[in-house]
Amino acid sequence: MAKLLQVDFPFTGPFGSEMAGALKDLAVSITEEPGFIWKIWTENASEKDAGGIYLFETEEAAQAYLEKHTARLKGLGVEKVNAKLFDVNEDLSKITNGPV
Amino acid sequence: MAKLLQVDFPFTGPFGSEMAGALKDLAVSITEEPGFIWKIWTENASEKDAGGIYLFETEEAAQAYLEKHTARLKGLGVEKVNAKLFDVNEDLSKITNGPV
Repeated sequence: MAKLLQVDFPFTGPFGSEMAGALKDLAVSITEEPGFIWKIWTENASEKDAGGIYLFETEEAAQAYLEKHTARLKGLGVEKVNAKLFDVNEDLSKITNGPV
Repeated sequence: MAKLLQVDFPFTGPFGSEMAGALKDLAVSITEEPGFIWKIWTENASEKDAGGIYLFETEEAAQAYLEKHTARLKGLGVEKVNAKLFDVNEDLSKITNGPV
């Protein structure tokens, strides 16, 4: 069953198109991670927050990615990464058009 | 621009199909909220957590829903609701097949 990974962390930028330019290659590489299905990139410039919502094929794939990504973020100076791993309630998500 | 609303809270259940049976009418009603696009229902029975990832058409619609939903959750005994509102980085999300 697909697993949803919810990640956010304090981030001072860049945001928007500047972030997209800087992280395009990283985005391409993420699509090649084992078990990866999709990622929505999230950002809040006024709250100085960023993160991502991911869907992975399995819990193991999500956990392995999270370890790798957390280490990468720490290397970029991000000290505190908030991460939660969830099951998807597929019956309810189907009613509300959830893209899973 | 679409806004992503990330919500999670401590929850002791029901989960899975039992949750789906209990909350089906609520799910239908959520699809009728102003500016609603989709919701993925999230749950983690072992961590006793649940929540949702939502896409709304505008920040105002997301904020109005969040106020209504927080009050509803408090009525159900949920004391602490974690909520974050994000912009979506559309360029990066497009690369990673993000459904926005």
